[in-house]
Amino acid sequence: MKTHRLLNATSIATIAVISIAVGALADPLPSWNDGPAKQTIVSFVAKVTNGGSPDFVPPDERIATFDNDGTLWCEQPMYFQLIFALDRVKELAPQHPEWKDKEPFASLLKGDVKAALAGGDHAIAEIVMATHAGMTTEEFEKIVKEWIATAKHPKFKRPYTECVYQPMLELLAYLRANRFKTFIVSGGGIEFMRPWTERVYGIPPEQVVGSSIKTKYEMRDGKPVLVRLPEIDFIDDKTGKPVGINSHIGRRPIAAFGNSDGDRQMLEWTQGSGSPRLMMLVHHDDAEREFAYGADSKIGTFSDSLMAEAKKDGWTVISMKNDWKQIFAWEK
Amino acid sequence: MKTHRLLNATSIATIAVISIAVGALADPLPSWNDGPAKQTIVSFVAKVTNGGSPDFVPPDERIATFDNDGTLWCEQPMYFQLIFALDRVKELAPQHPEWKDKEPFASLLKGDVKAALAGGDHAIAEIVMATHAGMTTEEFEKIVKEWIATAKHPKFKRPYTECVYQPMLELLAYLRANRFKTFIVSGGGIEFMRPWTERVYGIPPEQVVGSSIKTKYEMRDGKPVLVRLPEIDFIDDKTGKPVGINSHIGRRPIAAFGNSDGDRQMLEWTQGSGSPRLMMLVHHDDAEREFAYGADSKIGTFSDSLMAEAKKDGWTVISMKNDWKQIFAWEK
Repeated sequence: MKTHRLLNATSIATIAVISIAVGALADPLPSWNDGPAKQTIVSFVAKVTNGGSPDFVPPDERIATFDNDGTLWCEQPMYFQLIFALDRVKELAPQHPEWKDKEPFASLLKGDVKAALAGGDHAIAEIVMATHAGMTTEEFEKIVKEWIATAKHPKFKRPYTECVYQPMLELLAYLRANRFKTFIVSGGGIEFMRPWTERVYGIPPEQVVGSSIKTKYEMRDGKPVLVRLPEIDFIDDKTGKPVGINSHIGRRPIAAFGNSDGDRQMLEWTQGSGSPRLMMLVHHDDAEREFAYGADSKIGTFSDSLMAEAKKDGWTVISMKNDWKQIFAWEK
Repeated sequence: MKTHRLLNATSIATIAVISIAVGALADPLPSWNDGPAKQTIVSFVAKVTNGGSPDFVPPDERIATFDNDGTLWCEQPMYFQLIFALDRVKELAPQHPEWKDKEPFASLLKGDVKAALAGGDHAIAEIVMATHAGMTTEEFEKIVKEWIATAKHPKFKRPYTECVYQPMLELLAYLRANRFKTFIVSGGGIEFMRPWTERVYGIPPEQVVGSSIKTKYEMRDGKPVLVRLPEIDFIDDKTGKPVGINSHIGRRPIAAFGNSDGDRQMLEWTQGSGSPRLMMLVHHDDAEREFAYGADSKIGTFSDSLMAEAKKDGWTVISMKNDWKQIFAWEK
């Protein structure tokens, strides 16, 4: 194979150029059915990246924000971070004999999740603070990494990081190939997501926005640490999403993706920044391959008023059933 | 010129490769005198970018954080943001007749800045809230852009964005050329910096960390806005800097640059994350070309204990007088 031995920097560059050209012809969204959702995405991207288009947006301003729970990965039978918290309660129980007689822990330890969560937001806050605070940021990162590497989804029997939507992974990659900067903007805990978002979504920690608890700088044995305090810092949900976007990103997205009432203001904020803009909502209408829920669901509520706003404002509703050829990478 | 017409993609690629090789030979830090500070920078960068080195750091983890006031731009005779606030008070005075009899505004309007600031942090907070809150984020951005485009430094008679240190601009570019991601981590207001940091430093809004006031999402005439509230959200100074870094970046820097006691914890936090790490402090010791201050200065305090910590921990102190050939781009 003489030609191979003759390969030099110039030939390699030529091959690279050809590969890019060929790549452009392949379908970048193979898990999406040809339909209005896919067409909307492709034509939006073409419009904002075409230098000759009046709708051209410079690469620096191509900010795309994604909700996480229910948009990038599954959120049923309950938010995965809550499952993580419940697992932590069981693990920490031996160090907390008082939990045996104290709600919501007592019910949880008896295996009665429903009774434990009957206390509503207050009960959830108690569980989160007991399991997410009181250690350093490094210790928490280690705990998350261990859980995410071993825990499995109750229905799919797969690690939670495999319960991510293949069409959305393709969309993230497609946008980045078109020089978008992709961000997560989630109601979930920022430090619960960061340990794995780069590996799973290609989104680095500095592009993850989420809810947070306060931290405090301290010297421990001559080493600086940040201690996680049992005090809410910021809730990155609903009206909090535009606030979080402004705080962390400092410019307004030109594309935003969500799936529930919690994402409404993020989409409004995106749309309000000018034109053209892309606003999309994932609708969970596929009970067979994933879950079907929406208007009456407590988790991932997709209310009738959100649907009405989407219609009125021209937001695209993605039907998981009709728009997605494949939901998970491991399917079939 | 027949060869020009024959230029194809391959030749262009070859030229690009050659240009990069030639570029590597030029001095990337021409405004730095050859000395220990420059040597420390160059050898650190060589070490962490050399794939064969045991100290190699993958590009994703090459996070470098820079204080702004006194590190990237001048901070005398007082923080530029405070000058901005004072200018705003004068501009807003007609709408606030009550300020004539109310401190710190009354003294300010009489031109007695010293008396106005005698009230300390409380007086400064009053001035900041009166001038930085009560409008939307877009309105504030516009105000900052107008001021920064027109206001001039009292000593240098130049726009404030020209009072930036040429050696630090070169350092920022040099680090980015070596695939570092550069961030600002400043006690200054995050929304005071973002409107101009990309143009001046090449640092986009999403890589600016700073102090902030709270904002609130609202619909005004059917348009979404974020209203700036007269309430402190976060102070990104001293122990707040590692907290801000953790919140916005989510990983620890491998290089950090400051100039005062406010940067101490950022440098400790950087050093504590492993090895090799680069910690540097700009020392203002050039009264002739800029300003000389430090241990006893109220602005940009460089205390004896900071100097002692720098020596003990191997942080590099940059002497503006000895290490910088040129301070401002417009010099000489």
